[in-house]
Amino acid sequence: MAKGAIVTRAEDFPRWYQEVIAGAEMADNGPARGTMVIRPWGYGIWELMQAELDRRIKEAGAENAYFPLFIPEAFLKLEAEHVEGFAPELAVVTHGGGKELEEPLVVRPTSETVINHFFSKWIQSHRDLPMLLNQWANVVRWEMRPRLFLRTTEFLWQEGHTAHATEEDARAYALRILDDVYRATIVEVLGVPTLTGHKTARERFPGAICTWTCESMMGDGKALQMCTSHELGQNFAKVFDTTYTNAQGTLEYVWQTSWGMSTRMVGGLVMTHGDDFGLRLPPALAPAQVVVLVVKDSPEVGAAAEALVSELRAAGHRVRLDDRTDTSFGRRSVDWELKGVPVRVELGPRDLAEGTVTVVTRHRRTKENVALGAVAGTVAAVLAAAGTELLAEAASALDARTVEAATLDEAVAAGSEGFARVPFRALGPDGEDRLAEHALSVRCLQRADGSLAAPGDDEADLVAVVGRSY
Amino acid sequence: MAKGAIVTRAEDFPRWYQEVIAGAEMADNGPARGTMVIRPWGYGIWELMQAELDRRIKEAGAENAYFPLFIPEAFLKLEAEHVEGFAPELAVVTHGGGKELEEPLVVRPTSETVINHFFSKWIQSHRDLPMLLNQWANVVRWEMRPRLFLRTTEFLWQEGHTAHATEEDARAYALRILDDVYRATIVEVLGVPTLTGHKTARERFPGAICTWTCESMMGDGKALQMCTSHELGQNFAKVFDTTYTNAQGTLEYVWQTSWGMSTRMVGGLVMTHGDDFGLRLPPALAPAQVVVLVVKDSPEVGAAAEALVSELRAAGHRVRLDDRTDTSFGRRSVDWELKGVPVRVELGPRDLAEGTVTVVTRHRRTKENVALGAVAGTVAAVLAAAGTELLAEAASALDARTVEAATLDEAVAAGSEGFARVPFRALGPDGEDRLAEHALSVRCLQRADGSLAAPGDDEADLVAVVGRSY
Repeated sequence: MAKGAIVTRAEDFPRWYQEVIAGAEMADNGPARGTMVIRPWGYGIWELMQAELDRRIKEAGAENAYFPLFIPEAFLKLEAEHVEGFAPELAVVTHGGGKELEEPLVVRPTSETVINHFFSKWIQSHRDLPMLLNQWANVVRWEMRPRLFLRTTEFLWQEGHTAHATEEDARAYALRILDDVYRATIVEVLGVPTLTGHKTARERFPGAICTWTCESMMGDGKALQMCTSHELGQNFAKVFDTTYTNAQGTLEYVWQTSWGMSTRMVGGLVMTHGDDFGLRLPPALAPAQVVVLVVKDSPEVGAAAEALVSELRAAGHRVRLDDRTDTSFGRRSVDWELKGVPVRVELGPRDLAEGTVTVVTRHRRTKENVALGAVAGTVAAVLAAAGTELLAEAASALDARTVEAATLDEAVAAGSEGFARVPFRALGPDGEDRLAEHALSVRCLQRADGSLAAPGDDEADLVAVVGRSY
Repeated sequence: MAKGAIVTRAEDFPRWYQEVIAGAEMADNGPARGTMVIRPWGYGIWELMQAELDRRIKEAGAENAYFPLFIPEAFLKLEAEHVEGFAPELAVVTHGGGKELEEPLVVRPTSETVINHFFSKWIQSHRDLPMLLNQWANVVRWEMRPRLFLRTTEFLWQEGHTAHATEEDARAYALRILDDVYRATIVEVLGVPTLTGHKTARERFPGAICTWTCESMMGDGKALQMCTSHELGQNFAKVFDTTYTNAQGTLEYVWQTSWGMSTRMVGGLVMTHGDDFGLRLPPALAPAQVVVLVVKDSPEVGAAAEALVSELRAAGHRVRLDDRTDTSFGRRSVDWELKGVPVRVELGPRDLAEGTVTVVTRHRRTKENVALGAVAGTVAAVLAAAGTELLAEAASALDARTVEAATLDEAVAAGSEGFARVPFRALGPDGEDRLAEHALSVRCLQRADGSLAAPGDDEADLVAVVGRSY
């Protein structure tokens, strides 16, 4: 199998990424600048992520709803930081139904404003709280340097929006989402190690009082912000007049959170687990976990392949049959390898005569001859192990490229190759400006032991995780 | 339980519809004209429909993908009928990222054009056919007379798009979707009887050569078009140059289909099964199939209610516990009735002392005292029967309001109260104009026995189903 199908990561990581996305038929650039077509292989991965996230979001008590794509421009302008943050990225509808509109409509970049408009209608009493909503939607943020999955003008995501009676309850919920929903999905489903912490004031979501984040390291040592969970305080409540009557009959503003995870995750998966032969998928997110490949056609091979497919499906795996023998076996092998299917079962007349097949384990790139009767067991063992092994490999890479730094200069040096962990106070008052000169930023703040800061903590005592980022 | 919560259907059907949607907390009008907020109860119903449809679509071999929301205006203009049909309904983005765009972008009203742009890239050989794609998406069609779920400027739907080597294969697939996916979902899942047929040339989708449809009768005798499945012929293929090389090495245009079903279905469900007390949900689409209602608080009642909830959940039902005893029992009962939950289990201290509960069956509006140990069996029996009984009731209503007519005048009379079935030839050459004067239209054409027309059939020999419509 020729290594030459794609460029290697060491040669040119950004080009490698593009070639994997294209070669695995995951996505294409859309005709309008910065937009993206998600092809079935990429969408299949996203659907599996969605199902895992959706289940955890429901377990956390939030219900799905759907709010309009179009938001009156005036709504956006109510929260000062929010409009300042999003104004440069907006797409604006000025004509509808053949006429110029009296008030332009913004295509949602996020839905805090329109949702608060309804929260203020729906929430009356403390009995209505907490109100926990989530929506699966597309959003639009004009993108100057688009990159498939990572930065696209339109992307798909879920956005949760909640209202609570107290600040403590809002914080607890923002953290529950961060940990039970996001971190759990990233680590357990994507098999991607991740750091958690909160953003500095400079990097905070426009309109939030605290932005919690999961930050992971990609194959080139750069950080990818995997998701965020915001405490919005009472900022939106005050401008939308979202109030409730407490048990004592007094009117109070609600405390809010919002939180989102997007199709960007698919890019993060590629850049964490991909190798020089393409994508490597954890079985939980593989649209096909096993492909049964007919090497060369014959009635016996065809029948044996179909029997294997049935057996593996009956065992609960997602299985595809590839019997397109009018395309060369080598080409098909390389394609499935690029797509990252965890296990390939190759079946040819010669093997079959000996009662064996070849089982190829994608993430280890190993091949073994397996007796027909033992295939199901071998496949099950590989699928059970692959997710953990991919996670362990990524965790080693993260460890190897994470350096403890004592000064800003040390942080600049280490952060340019991976992550630098440096005392926040060591960066000094203009530290974030100086990092920016080197294309670096503080990805998150956390305690020295890697845990989350708590309300009483002095930020200066925290550790800043410094790195380049997507 | 007072009937007075909402207006009756006989008094004012449109107002009744609005009151059910509002009272059951299914949806709200959005701030931008014609847009809609789908609240958790409405969205929960849609999610269940989606899951059923999605499974059937995948069984029919189509894969999910996602295409951009923004379509260059020039794409829309390529297919003459298509642009003529959609131009008056378009929303147009003229500004993005703080600048006026060089070319305006249309917010997709449907995706034939952008998908053909990619089909022409992806399809080379007959080996690439059929190409069967589906997407779940929001679309925008400017709506002058918006009505929640039925006609909204933005709506959610799935749209399938396929390319085939031959006209026969395309037709067979359009019909497979119509029957195995749409009709099956409407009848078996929604419990709504439906007529199938094809549209007259006047009612056809802009750009199609044949539009197949499912038409159902609402509670006021009007028709609702539940979905459509179009044969597009080679119309889009020719303007987008979507060609393939056949087995003989000759270049041919592909034959195509497209098909969609939307959140409009939720409105159809309400208008078919709703009664004067609100919505009635078939259990397959009920976000909660059973609600266990604590009539009055006490530790014993609370414990018994929780035990019942656990028992019913363990039996596989979707169950909610309503122990909000700070709200009156009467109010809560009316609310759950409005929401259409199939079964309510009411649990009070007096009942419990006698070891019984009250089981209320929503669709029959019957109450019975049931011994605690027999609740699970009673609930299971009601849930097993409710879907079929709702379907049978709707089928009787459809039969009762469907009249065989011989002339246009008879069709006008009968079609104003329900459906008229009239020989298409009896309508004469200007028949559809004359029907339109009475706010009537031909909903579909079918054979006299209700089956679908086949290629050799003379349209004049078919039966036209005439009615008012949403």
